[in-house]
Amino acid sequence: MTRLDRLRSALRAFTAERDWKAFHSPKNLAMALSVEAAELLEVFQWMPEADSRRLEPATKAAASEEIADVLLYLLLLCDELGVDPLAAAELKMASNAQKYPAEKARGTSTKYTRL
Amino acid sequence: MTRLDRLRSALRAFTAERDWKAFHSPKNLAMALSVEAAELLEVFQWMPEADSRRLEPATKAAASEEIADVLLYLLLLCDELGVDPLAAAELKMASNAQKYPAEKARGTSTKYTRL
Amino acid sequence: MTRLDRLRSALRAFTAERDWKAFHSPKNLAMALSVEAAELLEVFQWMPEADSRRLEPATKAAASEEIADVLLYLLLLCDELGVDPLAAAELKMASNAQKYPAEKARGTSTKYTRL
Amino acid sequence: MTRLDRLRSALRAFTAERDWKAFHSPKNLAMALSVEAAELLEVFQWMPEADSRRLEPATKAAASEEIADVLLYLLLLCDELGVDPLAAAELKMASNAQKYPAEKARGTSTKYTRL
Repeated sequence: MTRLDRLRSALRAFTAERDWKAFHSPKNLAMALSVEAAELLEVFQWMPEADSRRLEPATKAAASEEIADVLLYLLLLCDELGVDPLAAAELKMASNAQKYPAEKARGTSTKYTRL
Repeated sequence: MTRLDRLRSALRAFTAERDWKAFHSPKNLAMALSVEAAELLEVFQWMPEADSRRLEPATKAAASEEIADVLLYLLLLCDELGVDPLAAAELKMASNAQKYPAEKARGTSTKYTRL
Repeated sequence: MTRLDRLRSALRAFTAERDWKAFHSPKNLAMALSVEAAELLEVFQWMPEADSRRLEPATKAAASEEIADVLLYLLLLCDELGVDPLAAAELKMASNAQKYPAEKARGTSTKYTRL
Repeated sequence: MTRLDRLRSALRAFTAERDWKAFHSPKNLAMALSVEAAELLEVFQWMPEADSRRLEPATKAAASEEIADVLLYLLLLCDELGVDPLAAAELKMASNAQKYPAEKARGTSTKYTRL
């Protein structure tokens, strides 16, 4: 059992013990995920781009906590939908490799609106 | 090496081969993550909450692809920041367990603005 | 001079008096707008859809404050970009009227991903 | 009747003619607003901050269309909630003036997480 599997089990138990399944419709979880993603964005809001590459410890800790929230809601959503996040990401990686061949995509973000 | 580790390696190689590191400041990646989270939200936008619990295959596939995008940007951001996403999530789980004791939190979302 | 014009003038003066123009790049303002939109979303996060139609006074006040923030950042962004928000909205209304003819669109959200 | 009032009337008629009131719960509208704010954010996603101050015409037009969408959903939400967006913004401006006195706030974004 990987750490990710253990995390998903713990999250399922956490939700069940609190009777929170009723709140955790995929629609609500997608909202919560979006809210957490915005809280993560807020950490970088007025920061010059270069500064975001060398965060102070307190700022890095704040970012880290929001990253945790995004991941936890993503895993909850995957559980509700019956989606395997790793399989989905592997599939997308394969599709991105075809969509953005390394030779053509090098150093340009012009056609680069997705990963 | 777990599947998650392999995914992170593949993602690093993918970015390096395309010289995309320059675009991948944490500030930009947090924006991209937020945009993908909103695309995931869009899947559920006008849907009655109950329907979101039983998606049609095409809608589930669309949600799955956006979940992949969110996860991939989250992993890219973690790499840039030097954050271990599993460790961050495990820490947050421990903190949530203290913040929302099972007995008190059961079935209520009143004080429940975070996970 | 309309109330909207007065608001835009006041906002310009407010920003100038604080030397905040330097922070107010369109990129940063679009981030701030997105963050405020998510704070507005958070008000409705775990709420059954029907309840969102009859908010309690304190919740309505919270929503109202986030609405204000969204509008203020939207106006700041318009100022920076030289976009007239009313003209843009009037144009979009005309385009939506063509895109969604009343007879065809009635009561269906199927093709309804935009307004 | 101001242009803003006319826009709100036109929007109300547009929604009524299509029987879209049923979809326009405040919860759904807040989601739609958030999705549009993210589409606006996407325009600036990989752009250096300086470039966002001098958009090419096509990019400015794209931003302008997303601004329109944000404004239209904001007005729809205000209608559903019975919130006057100008009054809300005026109130927030007054509160911001107290919260960020010009002398103290000048040129600093340190304590500046809200407008």
